[in-house]
Amino acid sequence: MAVYTHLGARELAGLIAHYDVGGLISAKGIAEGVSNSNWLIETSGARFILTMYERRIEPADLPFFLGLLDHLAAHGCPVPRTIHDREGAAYRTIDGKAVALIEFLPGVSVDQPTATQAFSVGEALARTHLAAGSYVQSRMQTLGLAAWDMTVHDCGRDALAGIDPALPDIAFDELSFLAGSWPGGLPHGVCHCDLFPDNVLMLGDRVSGLIDFYFAATDFFAYDLAVTHAAWSFDNHGRQFRDEVSTALLAGYESIRPLADYERDALPVLARGACMRFISSRADDWLNTPPDALVTRKDPMDFVRRLLFYREAGAAVLAGGGKP
Amino acid sequence: MAVYTHLGARELAGLIAHYDVGGLISAKGIAEGVSNSNWLIETSGARFILTMYERRIEPADLPFFLGLLDHLAAHGCPVPRTIHDREGAAYRTIDGKAVALIEFLPGVSVDQPTATQAFSVGEALARTHLAAGSYVQSRMQTLGLAAWDMTVHDCGRDALAGIDPALPDIAFDELSFLAGSWPGGLPHGVCHCDLFPDNVLMLGDRVSGLIDFYFAATDFFAYDLAVTHAAWSFDNHGRQFRDEVSTALLAGYESIRPLADYERDALPVLARGACMRFISSRADDWLNTPPDALVTRKDPMDFVRRLLFYREAGAAVLAGGGKP
Repeated sequence: MAVYTHLGARELAGLIAHYDVGGLISAKGIAEGVSNSNWLIETSGARFILTMYERRIEPADLPFFLGLLDHLAAHGCPVPRTIHDREGAAYRTIDGKAVALIEFLPGVSVDQPTATQAFSVGEALARTHLAAGSYVQSRMQTLGLAAWDMTVHDCGRDALAGIDPALPDIAFDELSFLAGSWPGGLPHGVCHCDLFPDNVLMLGDRVSGLIDFYFAATDFFAYDLAVTHAAWSFDNHGRQFRDEVSTALLAGYESIRPLADYERDALPVLARGACMRFISSRADDWLNTPPDALVTRKDPMDFVRRLLFYREAGAAVLAGGGKP
Repeated sequence: MAVYTHLGARELAGLIAHYDVGGLISAKGIAEGVSNSNWLIETSGARFILTMYERRIEPADLPFFLGLLDHLAAHGCPVPRTIHDREGAAYRTIDGKAVALIEFLPGVSVDQPTATQAFSVGEALARTHLAAGSYVQSRMQTLGLAAWDMTVHDCGRDALAGIDPALPDIAFDELSFLAGSWPGGLPHGVCHCDLFPDNVLMLGDRVSGLIDFYFAATDFFAYDLAVTHAAWSFDNHGRQFRDEVSTALLAGYESIRPLADYERDALPVLARGACMRFISSRADDWLNTPPDALVTRKDPMDFVRRLLFYREAGAAVLAGGGKP
């Protein structure tokens, strides 16, 4: 969470003048996003999030990401629209960095979701999957099994053992298992792939916004559900499984988009893959984030604990959990 | 700039329920303040800044700081009011930390003020000095000459030389000069003492808000003007003096509160003191901020350059600069 770049009042006002949104009234750098800087902007017309893309996001992907927001919003999903400038462009450039103006949505992120809230999240995720079917752009999943494997190998056993002595064996064993078990041919389309509580805004029990689609990629819808399950059904550190949240999330999803049997059967493996996805990126960040970076490193072991849970209980919890 | 503490949606909603401000609609951690965490809060009624006091601020000082906001706002100064809870308290406590809900004011901070903007800042500062006269609370200046001296001695010649080889001689010579030249008996009262551009919100050329009074203390009004002069009349790094900004700032101040001759005569020394105040605290932070802290260290040399300017040209620029 950081604001990596300083934008002065003059630059902000100059930028806003390219949009039909009224004059600049207020701008506050907000502590959200690890790959970009964000400001909460108020104009005489409305409020917006201004995002500057700093790292990890390829400018070539922006038409995909920003178009996806517009597509999902147009299909009734609670997703912020991209504000286009007077010439119709979805993003502009300041000092060589791309910036986009995005609709502000009300709501707050919950830390400890209730079952009712998890049901709403499941519904909202399923709605994006249905709407994603008609989105014409696609983006290859760059953080799939091959990438987890490469990242874990690049970290190396010794460095991983420095994080936790148990980590290397767990990670390498899991990669072998996943390589032999990963399903093929499941229904797929554009998925959020990072729907943590941070990325969901809620008003009471209702989802008011799904945000931060910058990991969105074409993947199995059931994998996206598995990522969301891993993100929501445990306490932050993965120590405590929350059965009622898990059940409600799956039920909410299936109330909108019922899973095929072969999707549901694949969920335990997909959930283990979801854990590997975050173990690999967090281990990489843990080992390679400079100590003076303005971000807080996240502990890969939070997802090792989830992985061990899914190894043990995934079939019981997932394979029949959401069946109506 | 940082948010040091995570506050969950439940904690935020629970806090807001103690105030008569409507229900929580949105909360964004904002990247402002180095001694506290801040959130921009929206309720069904209005917007507010929620501040959690983390470091450097003594809870015993809060009634002074928060009462000062109310006093200045009631006297027509563009200062955010403190929102009191249903029991009338100006602040509450979460997990042992004090938090206050403060009025949101529109406006953006300018980087490179124009002369017109500097005139407005001078006016606004002078208005707070006039209004401060009737504020019954007071707070001893803890960052005065004695503190600069102690801080610089605590840093030590060797460590200061590690920042810049010229720094130790400049700092120790200056402390000797100031000890022998510091004026006494100037008009005094509660001063902001930290009125950098960051702490001024503007709408166009008009000051819409003075914020962050957490260094406010009883001191000479002319010293507060000197601090403001040092903060506004140079580029950030102190390399370039901006004559027209300097002249406008002083003229704006005197248009509301004309300086006595002996105050104006003292300005060159007070401005050198203002530089020492920031040299000493920045040197201390530079040497003692852990590398993993979520703050950006500021270079003490930015104020050494200002100091050298005031040594050379302070009398010419300040002693007659603001004379109508």
